[in-house]
Amino acid sequence: MGEGQEEATGFEVSIVVPKLSRAAAAEGGKDCVARLVRELEDAGLLVERVRGVPAEFIKLSAPMEILGRAAAEMQMKKLTYIGMDLQFEWDQVAAFVRQPDGSLFSWRERFTCFHYLIYGIVNKTNSEISLKFDDKEFDWKRNESLLHRLENEGVVKLVFPLHDEVKRKHLLRNWALNWHDFTWQPIDEIYSYFGTKIATYFAFLGMYTRWLFFPAVSGLATQLIDFGSLQWLVLPSFFIFVISWAVFFLQFWKRKNSALLARWGINYSFSEYKASCNELDPLRHSLSVQGVEENKFDDAPAEKRRLQRNEWSGVLLRIRNNAIIVLGIICLQLPFELAYAHLYEKTKTEALRYVLTALYLVAIQYYTRIGGKVSVILIKYENNQGEESSADSLIYKVFGLYFMQSYIGLFYHASLYRNILTLRQVLIQRLVVSQVLENLIENSIPYLKYSYKKYRAVHKKKEEKESPSGKSVRLSTRVEKEYLKPSYTASIGEELEDGLFDDFLELALQFGMIMMFACAFPLIFCFAALNNATEIRADALKLLVMLKRPVPRAAATIGAWLNIFQFLIVMAICTNCLLLVCLYDEEGKWRIEPGLAAILIMEHALLLIKFGFSHFVPEEPAWVRANRVRYVAQAQTVCSKQLLRSITKLDSKWE
Amino acid sequence: MGEGQEEATGFEVSIVVPKLSRAAAAEGGKDCVARLVRELEDAGLLVERVRGVPAEFIKLSAPMEILGRAAAEMQMKKLTYIGMDLQFEWDQVAAFVRQPDGSLFSWRERFTCFHYLIYGIVNKTNSEISLKFDDKEFDWKRNESLLHRLENEGVVKLVFPLHDEVKRKHLLRNWALNWHDFTWQPIDEIYSYFGTKIATYFAFLGMYTRWLFFPAVSGLATQLIDFGSLQWLVLPSFFIFVISWAVFFLQFWKRKNSALLARWGINYSFSEYKASCNELDPLRHSLSVQGVEENKFDDAPAEKRRLQRNEWSGVLLRIRNNAIIVLGIICLQLPFELAYAHLYEKTKTEALRYVLTALYLVAIQYYTRIGGKVSVILIKYENNQGEESSADSLIYKVFGLYFMQSYIGLFYHASLYRNILTLRQVLIQRLVVSQVLENLIENSIPYLKYSYKKYRAVHKKKEEKESPSGKSVRLSTRVEKEYLKPSYTASIGEELEDGLFDDFLELALQFGMIMMFACAFPLIFCFAALNNATEIRADALKLLVMLKRPVPRAAATIGAWLNIFQFLIVMAICTNCLLLVCLYDEEGKWRIEPGLAAILIMEHALLLIKFGFSHFVPEEPAWVRANRVRYVAQAQTVCSKQLLRSITKLDSKWE
Repeated sequence: MGEGQEEATGFEVSIVVPKLSRAAAAEGGKDCVARLVRELEDAGLLVERVRGVPAEFIKLSAPMEILGRAAAEMQMKKLTYIGMDLQFEWDQVAAFVRQPDGSLFSWRERFTCFHYLIYGIVNKTNSEISLKFDDKEFDWKRNESLLHRLENEGVVKLVFPLHDEVKRKHLLRNWALNWHDFTWQPIDEIYSYFGTKIATYFAFLGMYTRWLFFPAVSGLATQLIDFGSLQWLVLPSFFIFVISWAVFFLQFWKRKNSALLARWGINYSFSEYKASCNELDPLRHSLSVQGVEENKFDDAPAEKRRLQRNEWSGVLLRIRNNAIIVLGIICLQLPFELAYAHLYEKTKTEALRYVLTALYLVAIQYYTRIGGKVSVILIKYENNQGEESSADSLIYKVFGLYFMQSYIGLFYHASLYRNILTLRQVLIQRLVVSQVLENLIENSIPYLKYSYKKYRAVHKKKEEKESPSGKSVRLSTRVEKEYLKPSYTASIGEELEDGLFDDFLELALQFGMIMMFACAFPLIFCFAALNNATEIRADALKLLVMLKRPVPRAAATIGAWLNIFQFLIVMAICTNCLLLVCLYDEEGKWRIEPGLAAILIMEHALLLIKFGFSHFVPEEPAWVRANRVRYVAQAQTVCSKQLLRSITKLDSKWE
Repeated sequence: MGEGQEEATGFEVSIVVPKLSRAAAAEGGKDCVARLVRELEDAGLLVERVRGVPAEFIKLSAPMEILGRAAAEMQMKKLTYIGMDLQFEWDQVAAFVRQPDGSLFSWRERFTCFHYLIYGIVNKTNSEISLKFDDKEFDWKRNESLLHRLENEGVVKLVFPLHDEVKRKHLLRNWALNWHDFTWQPIDEIYSYFGTKIATYFAFLGMYTRWLFFPAVSGLATQLIDFGSLQWLVLPSFFIFVISWAVFFLQFWKRKNSALLARWGINYSFSEYKASCNELDPLRHSLSVQGVEENKFDDAPAEKRRLQRNEWSGVLLRIRNNAIIVLGIICLQLPFELAYAHLYEKTKTEALRYVLTALYLVAIQYYTRIGGKVSVILIKYENNQGEESSADSLIYKVFGLYFMQSYIGLFYHASLYRNILTLRQVLIQRLVVSQVLENLIENSIPYLKYSYKKYRAVHKKKEEKESPSGKSVRLSTRVEKEYLKPSYTASIGEELEDGLFDDFLELALQFGMIMMFACAFPLIFCFAALNNATEIRADALKLLVMLKRPVPRAAATIGAWLNIFQFLIVMAICTNCLLLVCLYDEEGKWRIEPGLAAILIMEHALLLIKFGFSHFVPEEPAWVRANRVRYVAQAQTVCSKQLLRSITKLDSKWE
């Protein structure tokens, strides 16, 4: 089973503490950092202290057994060979399904165990322990987590996951700097290094880019080839093609996601997985609320009433919150955006326009940030089930803002000019600005941040030391460089989302733009395809080189974004129909002539396709399902009798 | 556990064999009926022979243990307390979840066991056994099923489930003849007597009738109350109300269905259940195809390719078949229906009209029957997974026929006259004819059939005996009466569907009619509500009194009909918008004036509501989910260690 190779993990987590003078560190038994290191070692972790320029780092690694025991203590659920998630037990380790690369725990599980171990160090003695840091003295109370205490006292600055240099270099070579095949990516390696959520993002991005090839080519064809007398049919058929393409794409993405789930040892189909995410958490909640196990089956009707009340109050809260957001967008943002678009049209001088745009950009920065904050506050009052569900709720709310912000100007221009050429100009402007500039900013800002932090750290150091030896101070260890790198955070706030929010947002806005105005400018798909091909490498580089290693997250689907993409398809059907009407109804008479009627019929047919197609192609490929089910069924059959005996025993125990 | 009470079932199954003269029966050991009875007794069944007027009946009952052992032999899967379906084992019976009424097996499981036991009687000796029936002699080959042989020889005429007189009387009193509360029904009792599928139908019918109250009242209000200057707003708002009502209704039905699943010990959520139905069968299929267990994990890529090929050929076949059906409907049925509608309009004399209608009715009878046959043939070439999946496929195809047949005439009238009053007349005609007449026919035809059969049986008897004693021959036993009753079959053929097809079809056509023409005639909802209230009792009476007890079926949702109802809602959005346009655009100018634009916007908003609503209200109520998950989780936690040990052992066995 290769258990010999995985006796200990690499140094995967680091705790940052301020640097003390060597004298102070050597001095006393009461020193809290020394105590922390001792306690960590007692917990079974392997500790390495590194004195860096900006701070001191405690690098942690753990033997597999320590992680396993932590997982058992946390009652971590893990997939077993009978296809059921059971509580992990270290002595029954052979019952649990291993990762594709042969290791026992995934990166997320390892990180969770580390987290549990680090924050699980409590004062087990009967008295308070007095600790010292520099000159400050404080008490470590009974049953208090040492790390929480130290964080509150400002001693521990940060706990962050460390890059694994070997794997990182390997990924860099094989993925970020692999220029041979633009859309191929080593998804399994990405999964085992970054976890499910980031791997899902890159799998989606890769598939999206590959699929973009088809509309890009046919968009190019519509521009280059002269169809003669059939020219009037070109745009409608391109429209139908693009919509069908998008519907197919999303359905096949679901299938691909199912296959990924199966590959990563998540024994659910795509739709079950979504359901199961919601399932596990309320359970945990109700378990912790009720506490005692006995009284659970007694007051079933009261329990049912409580749950129903909870559910409906949750629905009402969600509706109220969404109403607030929608009202906020319509009453505050819409007039603002329209005012900007209008003023921009009215101003004659270029200079004024630039000023206006600058003002606008600053204003929307604040607006989206406030919107994000408000959303986060609102979401706190919803009883969302689990963190990923809250994150999804946030995505819907904030996407509303961005949707309005990105497209209302385009709609304004489209309706103002009713001129396809101007609309194309605006589209190109927007796409170039939003995509190219954003890519630049996205990649340069982290680097600038890092450089600045590095400069400050080194500078401070120099000042402190007043260069006694005259030698230049440099960042020598990897861990301190990583510490100075920015972390992978979302622009709207760190509470519920990480940097994936921005990356997905970019994709979704691009998808919306190319789909909703497909008829106005078929060439736009080529731009998008080119842009995405570079986006893959840029994002990979960003994650591998520019940023700290992100904290792994649980979700293994693209979650709310899938619904947003589907919503954008429906929007695209409507807007493209409008565009076609505008194109063919140049006199502005708006009569239901054969053309308009045909377009209306086409719209309805497309909507039907959109919603009917999923009935034809199942979300989970048959072979994935067969494998998943068969393996489980076989295991169940083989150990069926033993299982039954266990259950019978349990049953008699209950009676 | 009350196992003492359920030591044997009642007489639940009967085999019908021709009556022999007493002399012949007494005569020899070679008599095949006597042999059958002996073999049945050897299999552990309790046998009672009843000599009736039309034939002889072998009534069967079974001790619970015999059924249990049969279930174990069949490798029947059954829900255990850890929430996993495992193979039934008689000695571990305490591990399996019991029915709500405390019995171990549900009616369907019992019937399956009976079926297995009866047809499982094979010639285990090494030689052929010679059997005699009347004068005919035939051989019972080695390893041949006795019952199949006897069926082929025409000895066994029928195997059918028997009514349970006590429960039937109880249901009759409490349900079919309970006139106090029109929509209340003892669903649990219906479930334990008829099985999941029929219980689901009645639960749906009851809920639909209860919910119809709201639009019925508001439809009445639109007709009775004069809204003064706001009169023009009445129809659009009624339209919006009705569509929202329907969307809510179907979503809440899903929730109710989830609750029912939980109550009936089916440990799946609503969407999982649908998925799981498709899951189990390909597994069984691939197991039986492969046979050997070892080579299963070896050629994974070949296996994957095979499954993918299967899946896509299945999709293509389904698309082709549906295309054939759609073409058949459009090219054959549509002209026919239009021709009828047109001719009906053109003919002046009443008499000719009646002739025409009679011809039409005969023709469509044949047309639908041929359509059903063709569909069944087509479906045989699809690789549908499991019987219920084939049945669903059939429903979609045949519903297309009925949809065209029921509504195309209405559309023709609506578009021909563009007159709301004529349309109303036609609607009332159709509704009265289709609903009231159908109800009458549905209930009288079985009775007439029964009477005719009874008359024939008695008459034949009389002739044979030539009334030796002069006393009148009568049907004295219950079982012979039941034998003469018609069975619960679908009008389109018995292959894949039973009588539920007709009942659901009636509901769906009614739903389509009231929804699609809601704006033309709001009062129609009152008719529908009244009709459905009687429909519940009529259907209950039909099942309890008129017909043989139906063979229980596996499905526990309304399956394809749910999708058809949802499709009808979408259709209703479109047709009502058209109706509103016709109503408000009386000059026939068809201009996009504010009114038409508003209607278009309303249409899109409603479509959005239709497809967005399900995101807000989950399909499974929180309390159902919590109960389901918690119970399982608790059991899993308690016996987790034992399970793990079992799996580990299994694992080491594999290596």
